[in-house]
Amino acid sequence: MTRSLCASLAAVYDTAPEARVTLEGWIHRRRQLATVVFVVLRDRSGFAQVVVTEPAVREQIVGLPEETVVRVTGRLVADAKAPGGVEVVEPEFVTLGAPALPTPVELWRPTLGATLPTVLDHAALTWRHPARQAVWKIAAASLSGFRRHLDEAGFTEVATPKIVDGSTESGANVFALDYFGTTAYLAQSPQLYKQMLTGVFERVYEVGPVFRAEPHDTTRHLNQYTSLDAEFGFIDSHRDVLAVLRDTLAAMVESIRSTAAVTALGIELPEVPQHIPVIHFAEALDIAGAAPDEPDLAPEHERLLGKWALERFGSDFLAVEGYPAAKRPFYTHPQPGDPRWTNSFDLLFRGLELVTGGQRLHNHADYLAALTARGDDPDRYPAYLEAMRHGMPPHGGFAIGLERWVSRLLEVDNVRWATLFPRDTHRLRP
Amino acid sequence: MTRSLCASLAAVYDTAPEARVTLEGWIHRRRQLATVVFVVLRDRSGFAQVVVTEPAVREQIVGLPEETVVRVTGRLVADAKAPGGVEVVEPEFVTLGAPALPTPVELWRPTLGATLPTVLDHAALTWRHPARQAVWKIAAASLSGFRRHLDEAGFTEVATPKIVDGSTESGANVFALDYFGTTAYLAQSPQLYKQMLTGVFERVYEVGPVFRAEPHDTTRHLNQYTSLDAEFGFIDSHRDVLAVLRDTLAAMVESIRSTAAVTALGIELPEVPQHIPVIHFAEALDIAGAAPDEPDLAPEHERLLGKWALERFGSDFLAVEGYPAAKRPFYTHPQPGDPRWTNSFDLLFRGLELVTGGQRLHNHADYLAALTARGDDPDRYPAYLEAMRHGMPPHGGFAIGLERWVSRLLEVDNVRWATLFPRDTHRLRP
Repeated sequence: MTRSLCASLAAVYDTAPEARVTLEGWIHRRRQLATVVFVVLRDRSGFAQVVVTEPAVREQIVGLPEETVVRVTGRLVADAKAPGGVEVVEPEFVTLGAPALPTPVELWRPTLGATLPTVLDHAALTWRHPARQAVWKIAAASLSGFRRHLDEAGFTEVATPKIVDGSTESGANVFALDYFGTTAYLAQSPQLYKQMLTGVFERVYEVGPVFRAEPHDTTRHLNQYTSLDAEFGFIDSHRDVLAVLRDTLAAMVESIRSTAAVTALGIELPEVPQHIPVIHFAEALDIAGAAPDEPDLAPEHERLLGKWALERFGSDFLAVEGYPAAKRPFYTHPQPGDPRWTNSFDLLFRGLELVTGGQRLHNHADYLAALTARGDDPDRYPAYLEAMRHGMPPHGGFAIGLERWVSRLLEVDNVRWATLFPRDTHRLRP
Repeated sequence: MTRSLCASLAAVYDTAPEARVTLEGWIHRRRQLATVVFVVLRDRSGFAQVVVTEPAVREQIVGLPEETVVRVTGRLVADAKAPGGVEVVEPEFVTLGAPALPTPVELWRPTLGATLPTVLDHAALTWRHPARQAVWKIAAASLSGFRRHLDEAGFTEVATPKIVDGSTESGANVFALDYFGTTAYLAQSPQLYKQMLTGVFERVYEVGPVFRAEPHDTTRHLNQYTSLDAEFGFIDSHRDVLAVLRDTLAAMVESIRSTAAVTALGIELPEVPQHIPVIHFAEALDIAGAAPDEPDLAPEHERLLGKWALERFGSDFLAVEGYPAAKRPFYTHPQPGDPRWTNSFDLLFRGLELVTGGQRLHNHADYLAALTARGDDPDRYPAYLEAMRHGMPPHGGFAIGLERWVSRLLEVDNVRWATLFPRDTHRLRP
């Protein structure tokens, strides 16, 4: 017995009309009419329609609620009204597990009629809904496009520790744990490690979980999220980082474009401009109508800037460079000629901060000065500073938040819609 | 100025002999002779030889110790004695950072003459050694081969929570942390999540960190390692899992074969047999000379079995199936007809347990019975059991430990040699 996939039935029919096929999947929907039952079967590829007329089999179907897992064997016939133009007739059903109980949310409805808390409480089931599956397919395609592009550009994938000692980039908002009698922390980012590894492999990336113990309960924050990190050497400035970021995002969009999920969700993919428009932070404050001494952009400023970039440049993306040194981490490279500003940027996507990136310091002496100026202790970073002491190239990098990226692409109102099993201040399960 | 890569110089010379080229990288080695200095430059691609004869430049080189990062511009000439058959003459050097201080371990020597603790203490530097870089390139190629194969086989990549509530698969050896006033734990594996997601996407994989608070200090254990997890539905038994594992490992080996690291390290890649030999656990005890009531295989048994498989089948791989139910987690599917045993396996690679895999239970009632029989509480797993209640296919999967895989491939005596920044009971930094 060879299994066919639902989405391939039209192709099977083209080469072997009237073939007997075997499908395996979930009973997505049963529609019982007077003399016929239509069963929609769901597998990883999509859907197939199965037409049941034989009374004994119709009787059997009554005992197989939606979501029951079955094997169906039947004959393939053409039917213009069926999805894909073919359907399965004269079916035999074999159950592959116990009949499913009725689900708390009806998964066969075109739209999942449930609030976000319900969807999250029953995530293991609600992700089965085709529209939810498509959301995650966008995320998975993004990961694949990110890696493929960087692999081709000579980057090396790395895997860094998620349990770290005190030398995190910022002491605030870290989760602490007992590590064999010592207090350790969950890594807020692979920042320090990816920089050290740039001294090894020159170009590195990592896709992995990062942990923020921020007590924020907003639509934009998660306490664990997936960070797409890249870092590389031999740059002239943060503008080189932005150029690699631009190409990476374009590759991610192309990877998404090749999925069936794009059509299923009817989403409009952004154009990534050949050159993403860049404005200086001081200019951004002015455009957003903020006071010139504001040290950061508020969400409302970002929204306004997103609108402005769309009107002015027709671009969903806007880079704001030169963020004030006071608001950037110690490793940030100053703006040459004016150290109030930095060679760093945020990339706004449709009015939301999506990526932080920039050039880093690369000389040991500059690190000592930067740490001392901030009242931080260089002894907290022995391995990191050792790397800087023994030859580091000018380098920089960026980090993309996967869930933010997907949620802005889909224009959903909460990053949790784009997270398989979100972690927030109130949610530790499922 | 266009940068050339060291490894590409021969190709550049073929199309443009005597071309002026610009290279960027680390001064890997200086050899000062009476009238000439040979500089070996290292970049992400490999090495290039630069010949310095001009006295002023020779003088400049004195101030540029090994590991200093430079830009070199010079003329390309053929020289049969140089690596790649070409070298750079009449060079100009520009430093791209401060001169490097002498490294604690000499990185230019063909062999890194340092003990494991020293290598790990200075990991950010010692990974720069070409032989160390090659080790990680094997790891990175393994990840890439794993993903490529499963992508082609219709798997969906997922990202699951690493902070979990009490419902871990086993309560023992977990790291606990304070999560906004609640005790949470670091995930020991994505097991329960990958099963739930098999109910969604049918075939899933995840590459990510897993955390084990085991107080073991052995050459085989780490407290954080990289787990290559796969799980999929519509299987007949664990033998289907083993078949997918076989093809995945073969793809990983092919991915590794395409790297320069294989040649650099002179490693012999294993043949993955078309059908990996399989023996039952009871048979394995007998072959290893263990008592027939032993509940598990000891490392010495695994070594003997590895030797036996090599002699008997010429295979570096041996699958042992049917592990006793008492030693397997609650979700393990029993062996049909004899529930003392299970539909699970360990895959031994060169005498070391590399992969654990098997078929899982998929019916809600079976889970309730299995948990109750073990004195575990079904209420600890609400979301997981909800998935099982609403239609799960027969399914199974496996998990490969990345660091073990690489360390056995390289036949090194400690898994830490294959880990970028290992975490063990004594090591929390770098």
